[in-house]
Amino acid sequence: MTCPLPVTEFERIVLGHGAGGKLTAALLERCFYPAFANPSLDARNDQALVALPASAGGRLALTTDSFVVTPIFFPGGDIGSLAVHGTVNDLAMGGARPLYLAAAFILEEGFARSDLDRVVQSMAKAVRAAGVAIVTGDTKVVNRGHGDQVYITTTGVGWVPEGVRLSAELARPGDQILLSGTVGDHGMAILSQREGLAFEEAIASDSAALHTLAADLLAATPAGAVRCLRDPTRGGLATSLNEIAQGSRVAMRLRQAAVPVRPAVASACELLGIDPLYVANEGKLVAIVAPEHAEAALEALRAHPLGANACRIGAVAAPDAAARAGMVLLETDIGGTRLLDTLFHEQLPRIC
Amino acid sequence: MTCPLPVTEFERIVLGHGAGGKLTAALLERCFYPAFANPSLDARNDQALVALPASAGGRLALTTDSFVVTPIFFPGGDIGSLAVHGTVNDLAMGGARPLYLAAAFILEEGFARSDLDRVVQSMAKAVRAAGVAIVTGDTKVVNRGHGDQVYITTTGVGWVPEGVRLSAELARPGDQILLSGTVGDHGMAILSQREGLAFEEAIASDSAALHTLAADLLAATPAGAVRCLRDPTRGGLATSLNEIAQGSRVAMRLRQAAVPVRPAVASACELLGIDPLYVANEGKLVAIVAPEHAEAALEALRAHPLGANACRIGAVAAPDAAARAGMVLLETDIGGTRLLDTLFHEQLPRIC
Repeated sequence: MTCPLPVTEFERIVLGHGAGGKLTAALLERCFYPAFANPSLDARNDQALVALPASAGGRLALTTDSFVVTPIFFPGGDIGSLAVHGTVNDLAMGGARPLYLAAAFILEEGFARSDLDRVVQSMAKAVRAAGVAIVTGDTKVVNRGHGDQVYITTTGVGWVPEGVRLSAELARPGDQILLSGTVGDHGMAILSQREGLAFEEAIASDSAALHTLAADLLAATPAGAVRCLRDPTRGGLATSLNEIAQGSRVAMRLRQAAVPVRPAVASACELLGIDPLYVANEGKLVAIVAPEHAEAALEALRAHPLGANACRIGAVAAPDAAARAGMVLLETDIGGTRLLDTLFHEQLPRIC
Repeated sequence: MTCPLPVTEFERIVLGHGAGGKLTAALLERCFYPAFANPSLDARNDQALVALPASAGGRLALTTDSFVVTPIFFPGGDIGSLAVHGTVNDLAMGGARPLYLAAAFILEEGFARSDLDRVVQSMAKAVRAAGVAIVTGDTKVVNRGHGDQVYITTTGVGWVPEGVRLSAELARPGDQILLSGTVGDHGMAILSQREGLAFEEAIASDSAALHTLAADLLAATPAGAVRCLRDPTRGGLATSLNEIAQGSRVAMRLRQAAVPVRPAVASACELLGIDPLYVANEGKLVAIVAPEHAEAALEALRAHPLGANACRIGAVAAPDAAARAGMVLLETDIGGTRLLDTLFHEQLPRIC
């Protein structure tokens, strides 16, 4: 469908770009439609109509996340690629095949057109790489000072085949805890950028789409062997494990020495007094796997480019007097044991 | 599933409520989970798994909208009910039965707990009334001054039965243009509240869920008789009709005298120099209907409480020298004819 509206040049976002008139049409024609083009979006209705896989008995997976990360550009990614990866990953952690995305933009008056284009192109690239499509969207503009350049809310729709069941309630004593790679990269990349810190070795976000890694893991193990998958974002690995331990009413024992941390990330954390186990990741998954299938699971993870550094980091335990249900205990490098609790407040606000 | 996390009292939102730790858990346990409770949400994973109607051949409808309306409370509604109604309506205008919603909140540091509760309760009430469920969500907190109390992005999933096809490309010459009631109520309610204007007769938003009105209309007419439905929000009735005229490459002729406007809205518009045809509505629909079924369609609209003031306001015409494809012409009250173009910029920013 061609659009006879005159297309208007602009350098900066103004309130009128969110008002539904010719300026809004210009923004859509210039920035969003060309970057995200696909048949559902091209129909330009207020809702997208999409088909689903024909497999009877499957279920729809739905997830939503607002992204408010600051700064919007950082080593290893930007708010656009992050918004795609984060939503694809939330679907993948539920065992879903990601299919469609919706993207809603809250733009701040005065936001530079060149920065918006960069974000949109990055999203478009991430969407193509992940094999999904942005089929519908929305754009609002808020007054200068009432936003922070751009906030993006991405909602994902996926399809979970019959027989796949992954949930934080399914961990059992004896299960092995696998981690797909190093922790702390995303959070420390953001913090370094935000605070203007420079380290000898550059720290880059690990932002990546994990759906093929998750699919490979599920394909390599029988149904039910993988109990639960999580991408440890806000609150880091420690928070994800606490949520699973509480959901399944089990204890967990983690070996600090087994959790890989890049030297530059470890140095930055030490300098700033931050525990990398609580720092956000955007391209890692933690898997709770039945013990007899843990080796096959680990091999499947390591065979994928995003899981090359995968490792066993601990095990699920039956609750006892020392480790009650819902507790995650860390066996530290110096031989002690400490409780890895959920943090009360933030170490790093606006990390995603 | 019960949650053993300690629940923390709070009066105002702090950055930690968005950091994924205990404060985030407290916010979810205190505000969101009790208000929106349903089995999918209660599973508390990062994605909701939901079932779809078993009818083969149907299609999924997906829509998303960010709501940044200011003020957040206004006569006739608030940002919470508006976020539900707006998304339900976008689904309904595509002929979809609304099923599931996702809700993502961007809260400003310092936002009052009491106001958040009021918004959340209003959303919960709107969701129950519309027969849908909020099955997944997200909460982020931005620094004071980088938001405006609360922004809400709602994404809706609906199901379109086979045979239903409504689109802006389907209007044909001779089709009748029906409107479900008065125009301008929502926009003028917001503007009056924002500017502290008082009129003799109070102006209230028309914010309402239109899915049963749309369903009644479709049930009263044979498949294909209703070509297109739109809820004229941002940009008002004039913008919606322009989009349909352009999408279908037809002209439209509208009779100004036939478009109902409440006296208080008309007075306020005259005072402020605003054309009510461009003012946002949040509880009205415009329907393009085949001429032989227009009377039945009108009866169906009028039989519904939200369509009591429904009327014919004009007709679709074949393009000619006076009215080219994509043009909407208004026959004015004083006997003239003027082009009802799309506005270049906003009359009223942040109306939804």
